[in-house]
Amino acid sequence: MDQSILMRVSSRAADFPDSPIRKLAPLADAAMARGILVHALNIGQPDIPTPKPFLDALHHYDRTVIAYGRSEGEPEYRAALADYYRAAGIELDESDLVVTVGGSEALLFALQIVAEPGDEVICFEPFYTNYTTFAMMSGVTLKPLRTEAATGFHLPDDEAIRAAIGPRTKAILICSPNNPTGTVLTEGELRRIAAIAKYRGLFIISDEVYREFVYEGTHTSILQIEGLDDHAILVDSISKRYSACGARIGCLATRNLEVRAAAVRLAQGRLCPPVAEQVAALAMTKLGPGIFGPMREEYQRRRDVTFEGLLRIPGVICEKPKGAFYIMAELPIADCEAFARWLLTDFSHDGETLLVAPGPGFYVQDGSVESSKGLNQIRLAYVLEIPKLQRAMELLARAVDRYPV
Amino acid sequence: MDQSILMRVSSRAADFPDSPIRKLAPLADAAMARGILVHALNIGQPDIPTPKPFLDALHHYDRTVIAYGRSEGEPEYRAALADYYRAAGIELDESDLVVTVGGSEALLFALQIVAEPGDEVICFEPFYTNYTTFAMMSGVTLKPLRTEAATGFHLPDDEAIRAAIGPRTKAILICSPNNPTGTVLTEGELRRIAAIAKYRGLFIISDEVYREFVYEGTHTSILQIEGLDDHAILVDSISKRYSACGARIGCLATRNLEVRAAAVRLAQGRLCPPVAEQVAALAMTKLGPGIFGPMREEYQRRRDVTFEGLLRIPGVICEKPKGAFYIMAELPIADCEAFARWLLTDFSHDGETLLVAPGPGFYVQDGSVESSKGLNQIRLAYVLEIPKLQRAMELLARAVDRYPV
Repeated sequence: MDQSILMRVSSRAADFPDSPIRKLAPLADAAMARGILVHALNIGQPDIPTPKPFLDALHHYDRTVIAYGRSEGEPEYRAALADYYRAAGIELDESDLVVTVGGSEALLFALQIVAEPGDEVICFEPFYTNYTTFAMMSGVTLKPLRTEAATGFHLPDDEAIRAAIGPRTKAILICSPNNPTGTVLTEGELRRIAAIAKYRGLFIISDEVYREFVYEGTHTSILQIEGLDDHAILVDSISKRYSACGARIGCLATRNLEVRAAAVRLAQGRLCPPVAEQVAALAMTKLGPGIFGPMREEYQRRRDVTFEGLLRIPGVICEKPKGAFYIMAELPIADCEAFARWLLTDFSHDGETLLVAPGPGFYVQDGSVESSKGLNQIRLAYVLEIPKLQRAMELLARAVDRYPV
Repeated sequence: MDQSILMRVSSRAADFPDSPIRKLAPLADAAMARGILVHALNIGQPDIPTPKPFLDALHHYDRTVIAYGRSEGEPEYRAALADYYRAAGIELDESDLVVTVGGSEALLFALQIVAEPGDEVICFEPFYTNYTTFAMMSGVTLKPLRTEAATGFHLPDDEAIRAAIGPRTKAILICSPNNPTGTVLTEGELRRIAAIAKYRGLFIISDEVYREFVYEGTHTSILQIEGLDDHAILVDSISKRYSACGARIGCLATRNLEVRAAAVRLAQGRLCPPVAEQVAALAMTKLGPGIFGPMREEYQRRRDVTFEGLLRIPGVICEKPKGAFYIMAELPIADCEAFARWLLTDFSHDGETLLVAPGPGFYVQDGSVESSKGLNQIRLAYVLEIPKLQRAMELLARAVDRYPV
């Protein structure tokens, strides 16, 4: 009896989302195979060189046995990381830190720790797609509240947030500077979230991996708001800070002892983060905050070029983002999923086109295409050199003009 | 109103197990602080040098930007890994492979993919503790079937296995060579599991990270049993194979296209495995299977010394394990949790003692200490040089004799 027909994956496994950021890569590959130059604005992969101490540390890495490290991260690296936070105005002891495999693992751990299967976590749309994957892995329901392009994707009012909190709500998940919108939450907004979380007994999971990329004003960390020691869980990563995405070194930071103990037990489950990469991360952390200025200025110029390019396209709606390196823009196009594919399959100008991330992947969808949220939006990552960004915005303007709908 | 009293972690987070392998480390640290030499037989951390190409590859690693890699792993490494499997007699295409962050992540992915929250996976006690963590993270219930020291921890009969399969059973999880028992499943045992899985439409998750460590007979992979293409999911790692535990490079291998697609979507969620470590793993994989012989012979000598040492202790029950580098032994001691602590707090001989992993952590427990399973067992990892192992077995004999119960 052949029962192979029974071998189906779990429904969650069938539903783990395709990355809206990576799913068009095959079409881009095909375009490149036809000789088209594709400007990739889909993925937040900085082109800024990783600071030299990273490679220097790998080049001098010297162990006879590449042994397991500590589950919570190497002590020297955690000490250096605590220094980094202090220099950023965030008081943390090294024992508050659990080193994770990228910010990704910190997010997964945080969701596992704050919520039971079936519990809810409030988040703000549009949001980083992979939150959906980690929530599904944890059996957690993301309860989304919309934010709007026209108001710079800032938070809805308190009443709307409070109305979304139900008996199974365990946490509010925020991201500032934001991926995909570039929005930086004001200290006032953080204080509003803090007051709600304290009053309703909720955790706050704060994804701050773009902390260094704020172009106007300053960044406030959730750990700088007083009275949140039991509530706040910081998710962080060196990926963007040092342009070291491939290192997979992040951290979870909290002053809540119970959360920390649970994070360490989870960390023990997967034994340890990669050890050589922690030595390399340590070497970069010792550079101090001085290295961020030039990087920030370069991204600010890129943001300005990208934003100005968008403003020149009739019908585009977006506010100038204050941080990260993304712009979420509304286009005068009904279906940006189709538009993003068309850019790769049918459009080119002087042999060039561009690759963007369609909006719907940054929203919780109910499955019907008609009611798809964010369908008139795209996310642009301004991680290319300025002449390339200028050309990409020119291509986008021509494409919007020429798109046959 | 101070609601900090409400800030409790989820019940799963409160219940993630402490590692039985790592939890006694603080007592060992304290013993060492008192000047005691502690022979660590608790953790499967090989002392064999990592092959030189690993460090050579890191020393020559040269990228301007440490960028994200491919979610499913670097193509060159996957190709080399497919070659490794072919040399081991396992036919796999590189597209069957998803590179993971250690075998740990492969296990987590496999459980997520085969089972819904609330579903069951059958496993055989005693088993690798961290299965419990990954199952809890996935909302999956491990349904354990006992195996016994007196019969070398081989599988129970078909009837017992079939009786454990319920309507929510989705997979059978096996580990061969086994951690913690060292047992190597025979081809006949694998065929029994295969027949049951095919008849009942179950996945088989096969943890084979100790493949290279078989001292008598040969290792059969689940992927070498015909007719299982839809059923079999292999979990693997370079940690033990190349003594590179800290690299965190594993893989999930399956010929089931739906499972693979789901694994790739999960892999996209966490972006990529560490990139430099894949280059280093690639360099070692190119060494071919010739390097495993001397390593295997060394571990076989260590096993023999450890096993002979155990045999000399009156009342010890264990069969000679055929693989991995663990022995699970029954001692003539009722509570090995207390005994393992006592070794560190009260026992020493000529200023030396030993650190072992108590048995109960390798079983599913119902929470009551009285009904604790595996309480008269310990796991020994024979990962030290032979004179140290000889001394450790002498210490164990003296400790068992002197233990005051």
